[in-house]
Amino acid sequence: MASHQKNVGILAMEIYFPPTCIRQEVLEAHDGASKGKYTIGLGQDCMAFCTEVEDVISMSLTAVTSLLEKYGVDPKQIGRLEVGSETVIDKSKSIKTFLMQIFEETGNTDIEGVDSTNACYDGTAALFNCVNWVESSSWDGCYGLVVCTDSAVYAEGPARPTGGAAAIAMLIGPDAPIAFESKFRGSHMSHAYDFYKPNLASEYPVVDGKLSQTCYLMALDSCYTRFCQKYEKLEGKQFSIDDADYFVFHSPYNKLVQKSFARLWFDDFLRNASSVDEAAKQKLAPFSTLTGDESYQSRDLEKAAQQVSKPSYDAKVVPATLIPKQVGNMYTASIYAAFASLIHNKHSSLAGQRVLMFSYGSGLAATMFSFRLRGGQLPFTLSNIANVMNVGEKLKTRHEFPPEKFVKTMKLMEHRYGGKDFVTSKDCSLLAPGTYYLTEVDSMYRRFYAKKAGANTTSTACENGLHANGH
Amino acid sequence: MASHQKNVGILAMEIYFPPTCIRQEVLEAHDGASKGKYTIGLGQDCMAFCTEVEDVISMSLTAVTSLLEKYGVDPKQIGRLEVGSETVIDKSKSIKTFLMQIFEETGNTDIEGVDSTNACYDGTAALFNCVNWVESSSWDGCYGLVVCTDSAVYAEGPARPTGGAAAIAMLIGPDAPIAFESKFRGSHMSHAYDFYKPNLASEYPVVDGKLSQTCYLMALDSCYTRFCQKYEKLEGKQFSIDDADYFVFHSPYNKLVQKSFARLWFDDFLRNASSVDEAAKQKLAPFSTLTGDESYQSRDLEKAAQQVSKPSYDAKVVPATLIPKQVGNMYTASIYAAFASLIHNKHSSLAGQRVLMFSYGSGLAATMFSFRLRGGQLPFTLSNIANVMNVGEKLKTRHEFPPEKFVKTMKLMEHRYGGKDFVTSKDCSLLAPGTYYLTEVDSMYRRFYAKKAGANTTSTACENGLHANGH
Repeated sequence: MASHQKNVGILAMEIYFPPTCIRQEVLEAHDGASKGKYTIGLGQDCMAFCTEVEDVISMSLTAVTSLLEKYGVDPKQIGRLEVGSETVIDKSKSIKTFLMQIFEETGNTDIEGVDSTNACYDGTAALFNCVNWVESSSWDGCYGLVVCTDSAVYAEGPARPTGGAAAIAMLIGPDAPIAFESKFRGSHMSHAYDFYKPNLASEYPVVDGKLSQTCYLMALDSCYTRFCQKYEKLEGKQFSIDDADYFVFHSPYNKLVQKSFARLWFDDFLRNASSVDEAAKQKLAPFSTLTGDESYQSRDLEKAAQQVSKPSYDAKVVPATLIPKQVGNMYTASIYAAFASLIHNKHSSLAGQRVLMFSYGSGLAATMFSFRLRGGQLPFTLSNIANVMNVGEKLKTRHEFPPEKFVKTMKLMEHRYGGKDFVTSKDCSLLAPGTYYLTEVDSMYRRFYAKKAGANTTSTACENGLHANGH
Repeated sequence: MASHQKNVGILAMEIYFPPTCIRQEVLEAHDGASKGKYTIGLGQDCMAFCTEVEDVISMSLTAVTSLLEKYGVDPKQIGRLEVGSETVIDKSKSIKTFLMQIFEETGNTDIEGVDSTNACYDGTAALFNCVNWVESSSWDGCYGLVVCTDSAVYAEGPARPTGGAAAIAMLIGPDAPIAFESKFRGSHMSHAYDFYKPNLASEYPVVDGKLSQTCYLMALDSCYTRFCQKYEKLEGKQFSIDDADYFVFHSPYNKLVQKSFARLWFDDFLRNASSVDEAAKQKLAPFSTLTGDESYQSRDLEKAAQQVSKPSYDAKVVPATLIPKQVGNMYTASIYAAFASLIHNKHSSLAGQRVLMFSYGSGLAATMFSFRLRGGQLPFTLSNIANVMNVGEKLKTRHEFPPEKFVKTMKLMEHRYGGKDFVTSKDCSLLAPGTYYLTEVDSMYRRFYAKKAGANTTSTACENGLHANGH
């Protein structure tokens, strides 16, 4: 028999992104791209990246320890830990097992869950798994913990400015301020080669940018149709954009988010939903006879839909775009970084609001789902989550690299990927106190990390380094 | 609010392993190993392997379509599909998305779930996720489907005879003949480098055989302790080996299964459990003062424990060793192939019995859990599962390769791993009707499969090949 937990969802969040970044305007000029290609064309402001002392393991160690410390959660209270990542450092050993070092120290090794894999969707898969566990008969009353961690890097060329890096940790349990409305969920999964990583020795993906954008929009349509059908079946009335207060999208680059929200307006128009007024109907009418394929290719439709949806976009989407625009594509962390932006910007007015989420991973896997936000109880309130994440300060204290230094860093990372038998510079001068960093990969590929001292915490147990072990 | 489904578990199973194999006795002689090194030392009889027309994707396509056909399950009835695998063909695109081709044909793309990753444990992670989903508030009344698929290959040397290959598909839902006892679950997860795959360009793992065996036995002890604690807390009495009818272990090689069951006897002895009689107590007494570390290294203890547990091993473990001994290590599929052996051997007498399962994945992740078996309703009965899997016939109709041909095959597979721009021989003469096979990997690494015609099925839709697509 299943348990009867209510309002299961996200109790607490922490976000970490590298303090090293490059401004898109600067990169644009360096690459000889036309003015505005990255800033307006892609809609991006800045891009974070790992230097040789950071990787997806160090970032997730930082995010998890920081979450536990700042919300006062004892590591012994964790009963499940899942990681979503598409950044492969080892093809067999999960990132979750690296994170177990934090919990082993306290004697807690009874923690279910491993890593999930399918491009940028993995974090959502991990989140669903963790929520289902809390609602299942095997739940033991402990918290779940979901970690999204990725470093998105691309070969030199047009895709390079769509990189980024971050880790997000989310605490899962009942009576959450960020509660799932689990009955309105629409997924679309299919076989596609829009973005994939078949070249195993390289960190860089194979990308068909145009195909990936079409796949994304097709999946969006399909998920929205199913979401609406389920809503209508259960609520007995038509769903429209007006029924959600905010929309959060997986954000490879901001321009695609703009197009996606406009696409939902076109979908509502085709569905004759109440959200679309007469003026908008007139502007979209010329496109009502396009076939599906034609509609994905039509620049005129894209323009018209973006135009009619603009005021709605500003109100319902813009608050959830800050971090993705400033940090870049964080793969699995991208949609939850967008959601973190919304909490950062609007935490004091979110109680009672519905947020629609669209998660997409190439290959492909996509789901539309919704949260109902609630006040919560300290320390698990929306305002405290905003306070802990401290996004404004983290963005403000970053270090902008000049393009030459950025390119040099990328070259070193390319060389180091999949490598062994090296020590890093161990230079953690740019990192905030409490940040983990990579010190060495030995001749057996075993990875060693240390933690920068001086965080506002009493924990010093890890400061002498986390050691590779097997005992 | 969660749903209230009862007896959630495995409704149906299908197993596929390549028809190509080599006898361990023959390999032993060819390798110049001492007589009995593989057959008695490892306890293995035979090893299956993929030739150049098979891989983890083709095997899972075969297992899933066969399960749907043989149990008469409409692909539209599937609402979740998860894959456990540690055989990486693409670092981003999941195996699950390849399997979506089967469901897209019917218009069903609303299927949650992706791939799980942590060595041989992934299938258990996928199974738990799927069961939790059925018990959660987001369950939509459809079936879940869990697939374990792996090809275990090793570089030439002492680990090579511990390979194997198989795919297993399991249908998940309520009122199952193989029901979870979800409250008695003990996990042990920690950070170890016993077996891992950091060399991304190679299919072969880095293995520390001795360390991996110790990690396995330590995890076994820890999981058993927790399992017993939870049992005793809920049932109000001590658990002993006598309280389970059968024991199923993840089986890298049979010898480790023998050692593991003997270890549980030693654990019961130390716990003063009722299962250990006076004669056994006397034989184990000399080892009661060993430290944990000493006890893992003591050959004398190993021998004494195997001796006292032998009659119990023959009754409670041997029925679950057939397929792992005949096919080899199937990584994620290994423990479920062991369980399939039990159903094959004992299906008519299993109703009401408790089966203890021990799942282990290096790195490391381990869980001990239990099933309570039930009669079930057709087509989902234990006898029909045995009938569908048809293990005896599948083992009997295999093709034994001489060692030279086996080595040549391994060399070709080594060369092809991670490669592109090649066509296979398309020779499916050794494959059973209805088996999928690889025909081509194009210049963009896209993979093409076809299905061998002539299965006792009316489905012909796939027989002209499954095409790479992105639309």
